[in-house]
Amino acid sequence: MSVPTRRLVPADLRAVVIEDGFWGTRQQINREHTIPHVYSQLEASGRLAAFARDWQPTAAERERAAWGGSTVMFWDSDVAKWVEAAAISLTCHPDAALAARLAALVEQIVARQEPDGYLNTYFTTIDPAGRWANLRDWHELYCIGHLIEAAVAHHQATGDTAFLGAMQRAATLIAEVFGTGPGQRRGYCGHPEIELALIRLWQASGDARHLALSRYFVDERGRQPHYYDEEARRRGEAPERFWARSYEYNQSHLPVRQQHTVAGHAVRAAYLYSAMADLALIDGDAALFEGCDTLWRHLTTTRMYVMGGIGTSRHNEGFTSDYDLPNESAYAETCAAIALVLWAQRMLAAGPDRRYGDVLELALHNAVLSGVALDGTSYFYDNPLASDGDHHRQPWFACPCCPPNLARIIAAVGSLAYAGSDDTLAVHLYLASHATLLLQGQAVRLRQQTSYPWDGAITLTVGVDTPLAFTLALRIPGWCEGASLRLNGMEQPLELHNGYAHIHRTWHDADQLQLALPMPVTRLYAHPAVRAAAGRVALRRGPLIYCVEQLDHQVPLDALRLPADAALDANLDTTMLGGMVVITGTALACRSDDWPDTLYRPTPPRVAATPLRAIPYFAWDNRQSGAMRVWISEGGP
Amino acid sequence: MSVPTRRLVPADLRAVVIEDGFWGTRQQINREHTIPHVYSQLEASGRLAAFARDWQPTAAERERAAWGGSTVMFWDSDVAKWVEAAAISLTCHPDAALAARLAALVEQIVARQEPDGYLNTYFTTIDPAGRWANLRDWHELYCIGHLIEAAVAHHQATGDTAFLGAMQRAATLIAEVFGTGPGQRRGYCGHPEIELALIRLWQASGDARHLALSRYFVDERGRQPHYYDEEARRRGEAPERFWARSYEYNQSHLPVRQQHTVAGHAVRAAYLYSAMADLALIDGDAALFEGCDTLWRHLTTTRMYVMGGIGTSRHNEGFTSDYDLPNESAYAETCAAIALVLWAQRMLAAGPDRRYGDVLELALHNAVLSGVALDGTSYFYDNPLASDGDHHRQPWFACPCCPPNLARIIAAVGSLAYAGSDDTLAVHLYLASHATLLLQGQAVRLRQQTSYPWDGAITLTVGVDTPLAFTLALRIPGWCEGASLRLNGMEQPLELHNGYAHIHRTWHDADQLQLALPMPVTRLYAHPAVRAAAGRVALRRGPLIYCVEQLDHQVPLDALRLPADAALDANLDTTMLGGMVVITGTALACRSDDWPDTLYRPTPPRVAATPLRAIPYFAWDNRQSGAMRVWISEGGP
Repeated sequence: MSVPTRRLVPADLRAVVIEDGFWGTRQQINREHTIPHVYSQLEASGRLAAFARDWQPTAAERERAAWGGSTVMFWDSDVAKWVEAAAISLTCHPDAALAARLAALVEQIVARQEPDGYLNTYFTTIDPAGRWANLRDWHELYCIGHLIEAAVAHHQATGDTAFLGAMQRAATLIAEVFGTGPGQRRGYCGHPEIELALIRLWQASGDARHLALSRYFVDERGRQPHYYDEEARRRGEAPERFWARSYEYNQSHLPVRQQHTVAGHAVRAAYLYSAMADLALIDGDAALFEGCDTLWRHLTTTRMYVMGGIGTSRHNEGFTSDYDLPNESAYAETCAAIALVLWAQRMLAAGPDRRYGDVLELALHNAVLSGVALDGTSYFYDNPLASDGDHHRQPWFACPCCPPNLARIIAAVGSLAYAGSDDTLAVHLYLASHATLLLQGQAVRLRQQTSYPWDGAITLTVGVDTPLAFTLALRIPGWCEGASLRLNGMEQPLELHNGYAHIHRTWHDADQLQLALPMPVTRLYAHPAVRAAAGRVALRRGPLIYCVEQLDHQVPLDALRLPADAALDANLDTTMLGGMVVITGTALACRSDDWPDTLYRPTPPRVAATPLRAIPYFAWDNRQSGAMRVWISEGGP
Repeated sequence: MSVPTRRLVPADLRAVVIEDGFWGTRQQINREHTIPHVYSQLEASGRLAAFARDWQPTAAERERAAWGGSTVMFWDSDVAKWVEAAAISLTCHPDAALAARLAALVEQIVARQEPDGYLNTYFTTIDPAGRWANLRDWHELYCIGHLIEAAVAHHQATGDTAFLGAMQRAATLIAEVFGTGPGQRRGYCGHPEIELALIRLWQASGDARHLALSRYFVDERGRQPHYYDEEARRRGEAPERFWARSYEYNQSHLPVRQQHTVAGHAVRAAYLYSAMADLALIDGDAALFEGCDTLWRHLTTTRMYVMGGIGTSRHNEGFTSDYDLPNESAYAETCAAIALVLWAQRMLAAGPDRRYGDVLELALHNAVLSGVALDGTSYFYDNPLASDGDHHRQPWFACPCCPPNLARIIAAVGSLAYAGSDDTLAVHLYLASHATLLLQGQAVRLRQQTSYPWDGAITLTVGVDTPLAFTLALRIPGWCEGASLRLNGMEQPLELHNGYAHIHRTWHDADQLQLALPMPVTRLYAHPAVRAAAGRVALRRGPLIYCVEQLDHQVPLDALRLPADAALDANLDTTMLGGMVVITGTALACRSDDWPDTLYRPTPPRVAATPLRAIPYFAWDNRQSGAMRVWISEGGP
């Protein structure tokens, strides 16, 4: 692997406008429903009140759980993610009421900062003596990380520097407290987040000390003597009594450069790997990037669900063992899929490569999007691949990390879709949009017209003030066979580099590309070691993974068998859930009418033809409650 | 359904000798290893010391768990089951050392009885005020029930009446305390057992008051106002805070005659149903027997595992919903399978009927026998139908109900095999043995020669002192096609009544029957509503259910697919585990060598032929640790 550098920079959020189409609708619902809904839930749950100077916590808010902490310790992060979502949304969609609400809240947040730069409502008001006492569990730096990201987005959206400046002061305090110098603590946060946030703060401010602090946190992690051991002893606790049992849980079991397999809590893992990828590409650190790539390969070839979800188990909210991908009990936390998208975006900075771009697309369109109801006001925390009808989206959670995280990632889709360097404009995602990127100091406009992901026809129109030579790199998804391209009406051979079609030329205004990505229905099979998918198929069309829901079927879903040669069609159903392409075909169903009073018998069940109808996974549980399956038994009569 | 009466009486334990063959070996190991091993565990765990007058319980023994009780409350039952096992074993296999040990223990037990007849070590020594305070949870009557069964067996084995008399006095006390008369409590035990024990006490003593008390307990159960509600209020507890949440748990949610579906804790259920069956047939109560049969039908057609295990869930140690029969998480407690055998035995008293006899055979040879290692000194509490290699027999348990229960049921197999009435001698089980039953006051000897269950050839030789007319009823198992019978060498047509071949004639001494029960390997399919078996087959040969173990296979068990047309052979492997018939054939295995760095792909896994080897389910986990599956995927390339 050659020494990487940070070649591609994601599009500025202000420069991508998504007006209609699939993501236009999702963003509109996000603006009009999710962002207000999350705000009202933050308010109702007391999280906004915590930023009032005169906050009087209730007894419940003071109470600690058996593990020695309280979810109130993370409240700041929930609010911060909402601030970030609102700020991102405002960049392209001005909204005076939202802007006013945001300004008032940001003012409160900034006013909550302590004179020394410290900012955390819990440890300021409820437990001042607890400051920095338990980095392993108490999320202080994680919360500040989210506040930093919020401040960066707020600055981009409004130009206001008060919040950004406040968070720079917070980062300065942290850099005084933590580090390898004399009198400093060699700590780092149990929940990675501040590492990637500090990089964004460096990008926004240009202050290299923030980058250095991020580098310190990443490099210090997992070293011996172990900070969490020492910290636990300072609290009078035996380190080996750590409730999560292993430091794998928070990825501090080894120094990060010695970590070659993904492990532990999935959100923590992918946030850490995101920061590692950033640092590797900023520093030109080939070994670190190769480490990231090894982790990426391990994740995507052994521990990722077919719809892009990661983190198998609810016990550690994280990884278990290779190929352990059960369906009903899949945890696949929404935040973990979001974290995977963020990691993929950062890996793509090394240059266009569909190993990352395809996973970004997969996770975003399936495991992330399933996290929010189509009406935008209820959410999945965990995203199983099979349900017997008792798993439903909820309007809120005791630990509501996912809803505001969904709000910010949906608002930020534009910056995931495009990235640029001096000589390259990369299109990672297909969606109806207008983007403007600066290449060689010149604005390049790209208009994308498509009804993707429902259809694979994409028209890209370049806008330049004067002709400009650069490479347009278009991701040709790994799921696609037979992609074709026309340039100004002329068939164009596909020149693929790492799965991206590179079109290098001097572009003129109004040059037009027509990309056709055929989207037949495809059956997917899992590696034979994936027990939960043995003998089963999943259905995919384009970037979307499909599932079957009970209400569309006359027979129990487990009675369905899809013959290997059954034809499957895809058609737009405009009447369903605002319009979805559904997959239909004829399956077989085991009949139970000839099993009178019989539980076991030597003759196989008889089968009968039955209609099969599959809908996109992200859209399940938006109609009548019932069972759902992603993996369908394959087999004939 | 015609009015039933108790037609068949199980053979007296003293009258069946099992010297060799399959069950001879099991009984020998039971005598030589299990019974001594359980005794030493009872001793080491403090359970024998509890019968000493001067028992000083430890702090741990005094401690109560969160549910308000302690397993020490049930200690007496563990000891009682050992006494019963030892006594049964002594009936046919004199053993002076065991007899002395038994006599000493029985003397201690009797000496522990209070002057008023009460007998319970916990509530005498640890919590005298707790006597009768919590029938719902505290198992007092259950423990006394097991002591009654022990006393009956002890009396049969030794002729000694001291223990039997003590338990009659205990029953007399209970009949004073509980009942519908003035000043009596309308209670009954949360764990049924005393009901069936009192019937045995009536049979042994002839005292009809014990039968009446059993009838009272059965009839009172589940009536309103609910005794457990009132009892909880007396303890100052809110009845609705019952930890098990529903009275279904202990089958007191409804009066027993209104219970039409099996529910709750499986051992409790089948012990209760056993007593109900006994009472129905003793009293000629057709409605009650029909109720039992409805429960039987419900259990065996919707909630019984293919190997005869019952009780799906570890949460209630019992039943869940119809067709909910998961494999890995199957609870299928050993004691529940034993209880099912006891229930089947009692249903058979209505007359030979293979609906009961087949289940008796199935549960005994599979779900019960799997509970004990082949060396007799470690035990399964729960019996899953699939394991990833982490489920192993244990030498003991905190709640060791299963080991002594196994010891007594294996010792008692003779009484399960034969039953008689004045005009009928029924053979329920095939096993090498000598039995003597009294028909019309005359001793009829039956010698059975067979290597069943490994082979279906059975020779039965009748011994009578003078010719005697009666019906010999031989169970022709439902799993068997093409059974044939010869009488003194002459082909005999099979005249089946409820699945038993009835041979009515005047029998002469040395008359010989040769029964041939063909045992091809059979594939079993589950009702299509059994999700966990969809697309899978189980292998059966004769009465034995088979399974595959990882150590016999080169490929992961979930990669195995058995083509629908694959030939399967059965051969005796004399080298394995003392000699077992194993099933062999050629299956297909999904290959994973052509999945480099790929987790999902559009082409199905390639398959390759691989040898398949299945061993009897009861014998699994007796070699190297590893995965196991009962249900194997069926399907071709």
